[in-house]
Amino acid sequence: MEANPILAEAVRGNWVENRHRGAFVIVDADGQVIASAGDIDRPVFPRSAIKSMQALAIFDRHAVERFHHSPEELALACASHHGEDEHVSNVSRFLERMGLSVNDLECGAHMPTNAKARQALRAAATEPSALHNNCSGKHSSMLSVALAMGVPTQGYVDREHDVQRAVRAAVEYVIGEELTEDRCGTDGCSIPTWAAPLHAWARGFARMSTGKGLDGEHARGAQALFDAATSHPHLVAGTGHLDTLVMEAFMGRVMQKGGAEGVQCGAIRDKGWGYALKCDDGNMVASHTMVAALLLRFADPDANQKAVLDQFARQPIKNVRGTVVGEMRAVGI
Amino acid sequence: MEANPILAEAVRGNWVENRHRGAFVIVDADGQVIASAGDIDRPVFPRSAIKSMQALAIFDRHAVERFHHSPEELALACASHHGEDEHVSNVSRFLERMGLSVNDLECGAHMPTNAKARQALRAAATEPSALHNNCSGKHSSMLSVALAMGVPTQGYVDREHDVQRAVRAAVEYVIGEELTEDRCGTDGCSIPTWAAPLHAWARGFARMSTGKGLDGEHARGAQALFDAATSHPHLVAGTGHLDTLVMEAFMGRVMQKGGAEGVQCGAIRDKGWGYALKCDDGNMVASHTMVAALLLRFADPDANQKAVLDQFARQPIKNVRGTVVGEMRAVGI
Repeated sequence: MEANPILAEAVRGNWVENRHRGAFVIVDADGQVIASAGDIDRPVFPRSAIKSMQALAIFDRHAVERFHHSPEELALACASHHGEDEHVSNVSRFLERMGLSVNDLECGAHMPTNAKARQALRAAATEPSALHNNCSGKHSSMLSVALAMGVPTQGYVDREHDVQRAVRAAVEYVIGEELTEDRCGTDGCSIPTWAAPLHAWARGFARMSTGKGLDGEHARGAQALFDAATSHPHLVAGTGHLDTLVMEAFMGRVMQKGGAEGVQCGAIRDKGWGYALKCDDGNMVASHTMVAALLLRFADPDANQKAVLDQFARQPIKNVRGTVVGEMRAVGI
Repeated sequence: MEANPILAEAVRGNWVENRHRGAFVIVDADGQVIASAGDIDRPVFPRSAIKSMQALAIFDRHAVERFHHSPEELALACASHHGEDEHVSNVSRFLERMGLSVNDLECGAHMPTNAKARQALRAAATEPSALHNNCSGKHSSMLSVALAMGVPTQGYVDREHDVQRAVRAAVEYVIGEELTEDRCGTDGCSIPTWAAPLHAWARGFARMSTGKGLDGEHARGAQALFDAATSHPHLVAGTGHLDTLVMEAFMGRVMQKGGAEGVQCGAIRDKGWGYALKCDDGNMVASHTMVAALLLRFADPDANQKAVLDQFARQPIKNVRGTVVGEMRAVGI
């Protein structure tokens, strides 16, 4: 297998300590490649980066007509939220509106991503619940799909459950590729994740961004989801996170979503371009430097947007005493 | 730059999610290569993996005659300890014996590496001190060098301080290579770290293991340090850590020490071989799988040693609910 290029490096003092390889692609809705590096045909797990695609099942299965999901609920369906108060209370209300509760979530519980939220739980000697799981909004939307389909909610995370079949079909429709069982794994939140080529994920984002290649219902659903996410960037991630800060700064022009193990996907909406990026070794900070460099180069940032991206494209490395001793930085994008 | 080979991969379900490249070399004390992969001439920061080499300054500067350092103190000088009670109390006594205290440490404070020790501090609402810093034993030994040299202890972490000059000279002597300022960075604990080729680090470990190529005083110092480390594996790392478990299982036959950002060094003492390994992207778990595979192949493990190494050469990946969904595993070693 040919090595992907080095797209980020960590420098300590005056010497490169670590190298991070990866691949990225930017395409339009027709699949025309605008820019790329590395192997864009190799199937990769998209993980949480494609929650907005998975959320299209809400529209496919008419859950949105039944529950009149608010933009906040749609944003949470696309979110890897940080377990802050705003996230937990909104997910709780989301479930309540459907007559469900935290007990119906099958994502498992983990400590909030947000440090202050973690400290608050520890100070209160409270264990985290499934509401704090970064995927609890997505799982609420999957429960919504189950109810709309009239199937039992229990086991909705299983690959052969009607909900996951619906989610899989929605994603396949958007990317125009079959998701096959020889490239399937279980995500951190227990639902299936399917590997597909980077160019397919990128084209899916371009299609969702433009509606091109999608039927009217899917196009409207995609638009509603992207509008919800880019209008509520804090719900999609959390305080200080790249996804939130980038979407805030670009004010609707950019949909940006990270996934575990170094995946970054999104759309430069006004250009109609989708992009997908994977850091080969799964390092998240490296993937942040890479996607920031990608947006710096291709998203025509203004001064404010550039300032936001700059802080992610080069990130200080500090020692235990807090002194800056190096930096992680994107290279070759 | 030619890519190093893939030496570890993370599999999710039935598909490879992440790939970790790296290089390793095993040499004897004459520098004869027993086995290698990747670029072994590229200088890499050894970080904490060479604390035993840095500790040779204790012998060079006659600190060991002055303070009659115990095997426990020598083991702590080589350690990246986990801040457990045994570590903190021993480092505290180490300093006290020299008429010093935690206030003389310039390594900074961080939460203990050990989870139970962290929980205990949190439960007591106590901030960690420099004693909990994984490097506090090494720093205590550097203070010992300062006292033995009759120089001020203050600023002992600075590159131009007599202590760091002595440490640098000791390391240069053992590896037989000059450490140059164009390949210098600051380590997490604020002392300098110097990049040198993997083969030089490996040969240094082979020399320390055999005494070959070292004068009598250095050979005795090296033997004392390796004996101290391999006789007190828990002091060198902590509960459940690879370095501790491997040294316990090999009962003196293997000196093994990890360093930050995916470095692993050591010696198969009865063969007189040193080894050094670096994961290109700095991933520690990947480097653990790699060094475990290296020892499985080259250290002639018995059944018990093999069982210990096996658990590091293949490590389960779990989802939030604790279900095994994949594994990190060494490949090609």
